[in-house]
Amino acid sequence: MRIKKENSVEVIAKISAVKAAIEKQKSSGKSIGFVPTMGFLHEGHLSLVRESLRRTGYTVVSIFVNPTQFGPKEDLQEYPRNLEKDMAFLEELGVDLVFIPDTLEMYPEGFKTYVEVTDLQDNFEGRSRPGHFRGVCTVVLKFFEIINPDVAYFGQKDAQQSVIIKKMVGDLNLDVEIQVLPTVREKDGLALSSRNVYLTKDQRKAASILVNCLRKAKNMVEAGEKDPYVITKEMTRMIGRQTLADLDYIAIVDVGNFEPLDKIKKEALIAVAVYFGKVRLIDNMIVQSKE
Amino acid sequence: MRIKKENSVEVIAKISAVKAAIEKQKSSGKSIGFVPTMGFLHEGHLSLVRESLRRTGYTVVSIFVNPTQFGPKEDLQEYPRNLEKDMAFLEELGVDLVFIPDTLEMYPEGFKTYVEVTDLQDNFEGRSRPGHFRGVCTVVLKFFEIINPDVAYFGQKDAQQSVIIKKMVGDLNLDVEIQVLPTVREKDGLALSSRNVYLTKDQRKAASILVNCLRKAKNMVEAGEKDPYVITKEMTRMIGRQTLADLDYIAIVDVGNFEPLDKIKKEALIAVAVYFGKVRLIDNMIVQSKE
Repeated sequence: MRIKKENSVEVIAKISAVKAAIEKQKSSGKSIGFVPTMGFLHEGHLSLVRESLRRTGYTVVSIFVNPTQFGPKEDLQEYPRNLEKDMAFLEELGVDLVFIPDTLEMYPEGFKTYVEVTDLQDNFEGRSRPGHFRGVCTVVLKFFEIINPDVAYFGQKDAQQSVIIKKMVGDLNLDVEIQVLPTVREKDGLALSSRNVYLTKDQRKAASILVNCLRKAKNMVEAGEKDPYVITKEMTRMIGRQTLADLDYIAIVDVGNFEPLDKIKKEALIAVAVYFGKVRLIDNMIVQSKE
Repeated sequence: MRIKKENSVEVIAKISAVKAAIEKQKSSGKSIGFVPTMGFLHEGHLSLVRESLRRTGYTVVSIFVNPTQFGPKEDLQEYPRNLEKDMAFLEELGVDLVFIPDTLEMYPEGFKTYVEVTDLQDNFEGRSRPGHFRGVCTVVLKFFEIINPDVAYFGQKDAQQSVIIKKMVGDLNLDVEIQVLPTVREKDGLALSSRNVYLTKDQRKAASILVNCLRKAKNMVEAGEKDPYVITKEMTRMIGRQTLADLDYIAIVDVGNFEPLDKIKKEALIAVAVYFGKVRLIDNMIVQSKE
């Protein structure tokens, strides 16, 4: 059983100190679990942390709003932050180490090195957010090098990100297991996201259109529909009826490699991105065809 | 003292087997030295191997002609190979492990992930060989992940490569020390290179122009010349007089970051690339201004 005094979490800002702390744990034989976050934690993040606490001997959470994954027109400055509340959550759960570097610690002046997963990074989220996945891959690789985790945890809500991270790990021969855990949802089905706080009351109500059109798509597939075009058309129609919602994209793709499907065979991932004013929300579901 | 039976070198083609072999050495407390090569070994490579054998407990040499660092019009197919001779050298020196993966082991079908050091990769060698340094960074990072070396050895002859690798290691927080060792030269001063075998007898004779114009530049700097333009002009003139030689570029740059210098202050790196027919040779010297 895991017994841990409250407030015993270690907070570190320097890379060298994190490396030293983890080296010590590794040499004592502990397995390292890692949950990368941009802070403003919600139950989705916490579900990853709990799984890491269950499965590994030493859990590291990073809180870092990574500038290289935001486009020049995106919400880096306004991205929500609440470090005090985040720390209260993590202390209560009994996390071992929280890594909170500042931007210059991660990206010193003259930083020039980037990691990218070609092709995969240019579709869907990548098309809407140029450079986004390059920033994600770069910062995640850096975290992996600093923290040297045995297992790293990601949420299914960022489905394309998970596929890309797994591809990077395989291609670059990294020794880390990637675990992707289910999306956590509000009562009305809205996927938890730090960006949900930006929504007005009316937009918040309207935002359940994402999960609703995904559920409709799931039902269609389970009822035998195999044509992505037919499903996309119905989802587009549903989102079109919601006046506060502007469709960005609908993706019906292979679960493993995010390639668009001509026909749904056994399994597919259906992803959707919708704007409510300036707020952009994403969601997805994996659907099984009964054949 | 190092005593080693001849022919005891371990040869491995599979990544998983290399990881296992090295994990075993690491857990017994040995430090790992790594020399990446494309084979066709000469005294330049062997000087790196000897230093690794002196400084570390377990020396790994890779032999891999890396396709991603060759351009579409370059000499990948014709790159010289002589595995038998390479192995004889490495056995005689007492190397512990030789890693000889095939192309599909390093780049399985669908490989998509690349590492690049922006800016630095686009000048000089990078301009003459688009994509070259992206291929170098990607394969070197993969080797570092597979072999997990404490120290990796590179030759000063590929000066821009060494600067880029060091930058990558720093930017991505990799735990490996990069050692750059001096260029090994023939009697007439020509830098050893696997590509020297391509030269005709006349070209081979003419090729000493590289080291000769670098020595001239060094003398000029030591005599007080600080203007890169004046030095470049003299080097260009010398190469121009050699009818078999076609100048590709002359670079007078900062030793640490390879940025072109307006004026030589304390120290500079002078690099040159010259074609002899289709054969392209490079060389460089670090020069000190007496100020």
